[in-house]
Amino acid sequence: MIKNDLFLRALKGETVERPPVWLMRQAGRYLPEFQEIKTKYDFFTRCQTPELASEITLQPIRRFGMDAAILFSDILVVPQAMNIPVEMKAEIGPWLPKPIHSARALAEVYVPDIDETLGYVMEAIKMTKEKLQNEIPLIGFAGSPWTIFCYCTEGQGSKTFAKAKELCYTNPQLAHQLLQKITDTTIAYLKKKVGAGVDAVQLFDSWGGLLSPHDYQEFSWKYLQQIIDALKPLIPVIIFGKGCWFALETMSKSGAAALGIDWTCPAETARKLTGGIITLQGNFDPSRLLSSPKVIANMVTEMIDSFGKDRYIVNLGHGILPNIPLEHVKVFVETVKAYR
Amino acid sequence: MIKNDLFLRALKGETVERPPVWLMRQAGRYLPEFQEIKTKYDFFTRCQTPELASEITLQPIRRFGMDAAILFSDILVVPQAMNIPVEMKAEIGPWLPKPIHSARALAEVYVPDIDETLGYVMEAIKMTKEKLQNEIPLIGFAGSPWTIFCYCTEGQGSKTFAKAKELCYTNPQLAHQLLQKITDTTIAYLKKKVGAGVDAVQLFDSWGGLLSPHDYQEFSWKYLQQIIDALKPLIPVIIFGKGCWFALETMSKSGAAALGIDWTCPAETARKLTGGIITLQGNFDPSRLLSSPKVIANMVTEMIDSFGKDRYIVNLGHGILPNIPLEHVKVFVETVKAYR
Repeated sequence: MIKNDLFLRALKGETVERPPVWLMRQAGRYLPEFQEIKTKYDFFTRCQTPELASEITLQPIRRFGMDAAILFSDILVVPQAMNIPVEMKAEIGPWLPKPIHSARALAEVYVPDIDETLGYVMEAIKMTKEKLQNEIPLIGFAGSPWTIFCYCTEGQGSKTFAKAKELCYTNPQLAHQLLQKITDTTIAYLKKKVGAGVDAVQLFDSWGGLLSPHDYQEFSWKYLQQIIDALKPLIPVIIFGKGCWFALETMSKSGAAALGIDWTCPAETARKLTGGIITLQGNFDPSRLLSSPKVIANMVTEMIDSFGKDRYIVNLGHGILPNIPLEHVKVFVETVKAYR
Repeated sequence: MIKNDLFLRALKGETVERPPVWLMRQAGRYLPEFQEIKTKYDFFTRCQTPELASEITLQPIRRFGMDAAILFSDILVVPQAMNIPVEMKAEIGPWLPKPIHSARALAEVYVPDIDETLGYVMEAIKMTKEKLQNEIPLIGFAGSPWTIFCYCTEGQGSKTFAKAKELCYTNPQLAHQLLQKITDTTIAYLKKKVGAGVDAVQLFDSWGGLLSPHDYQEFSWKYLQQIIDALKPLIPVIIFGKGCWFALETMSKSGAAALGIDWTCPAETARKLTGGIITLQGNFDPSRLLSSPKVIANMVTEMIDSFGKDRYIVNLGHGILPNIPLEHVKVFVETVKAYR
């Protein structure tokens, strides 16, 4: 059994002494020990080498003692496994040289054998679970089908993902075929992660907030619901949709164990929209970690007071930024741990 | 008197035969006649030459017959007038080579004499009013202080405006001093526009949605309220805050004549949050103009049904995209005009 099970108990909605805390992208660029690994190994080497991925996963835990670890990886390993080339370019970020815009391009995209293509993730999970020695739970993650679709069709990051949306509105049939292939792959992938030992999974719908509420249901939510239906008998599922406040009510009835909230949605509104019964996770503005330690401590306490200590997981409203001082992360975590 | 006063009547909340329609960025890049001017004159020449600005303002009216014109200009002429250099770079967009990060840099920023620095805008307004011959009203606009601040501190466009937010959270005093200077300039600028003849003004808070509701009140709304207070005795004021659904209730009590709504906020929610009494404007997803004409016509009709024909101005939820077919814009406008 896991010794610190605060996170799992919060996911079940149990009464806890204090809320658990972890940070999205906690295994990442703000850590000097991560930067050291980064100078030696390129992006996909870090993802694909179980020793490196598990080491990076543990770095923030050693330093700050969060209540959950999240496996270091990237959402774009999924399209890569589906025969869609993905590169990581220094100035640009993700770069997909062959974006999908036609039936011919789609024909070359397949639902892969997970062990063959993503076996390295399962190795990393097993290795990380061993290193964690049942101290805290391990989270596995995937991108939402819509968010993966955005990259596969746009070919790179974007403010508006105009090309991704264009494909949906001019050729919805093609869009749905690609979304279904991504969904099928993601379900198989997450099931394998469960088999390898993760204790919960989180789905990141980073770009769901670009869609109207109606289009969100059609091009994003429909597929997330398929994933929840497939995974919820096996493991707690957390859904985080950035900018998706308008879908919170739907999400709260989906069978997800918890919902991520971004910093634009007040705690009271989030509780109201979700009926007050589901576990919520969030929602500190990542930029606010640039404030002074004293301000951070006050804001964290107020945030817990607003969400309430139960059915709540303290987190940011999106990933931590690279320029956050370590001391500020420490204050963030310690304030939660001292909360009574 | 203005012959087609549908837009002004909707702003007053009067009962109308059908809602008025205009499109954010209607004088812009999707128009071939605009592209022709663009090949001959650079960005700021187009803004600063009254003949060009008024010609560009009229182009969409001639082609589609919207119910209001909006003066062609740019929100960044304001910092330019405040002694903050602004360039327009082909690949990057707005480029401010001397972003404001220190008290020393702030000391060189001043509240300018409007006639001296922005007199060309007033000339363009007078010329446009003459050409319009009182057929339809003319809208003048400005960026919100927060949105202008974002560019002045970040130095260019950004997904997250992390540097702008960093300045607010690490040096709030400096941030507020700059915001106040921008606000004072904007009030003087908009008053001059009223004097020159515009019939309504709109404030664009394009980046307000990056702030938490609490920080929005402190760094954006406070200054918008100052502008509304100064302008509302003179002219109807429209506030458009992209991603600012969380502030709609505050906005509805501000004295603004109308509020812009983006496409992520359903009509029913927007009406509920604003108490059902204020005029709303929006909120068609600009990307949805890529759909087939038939789909566009259906969606526009449904949108009007959802908002209701009164206290409503049909518009997009943000600016029109450069790749929208002209025929689709025509269907959008004609569907509104045929609404009964």
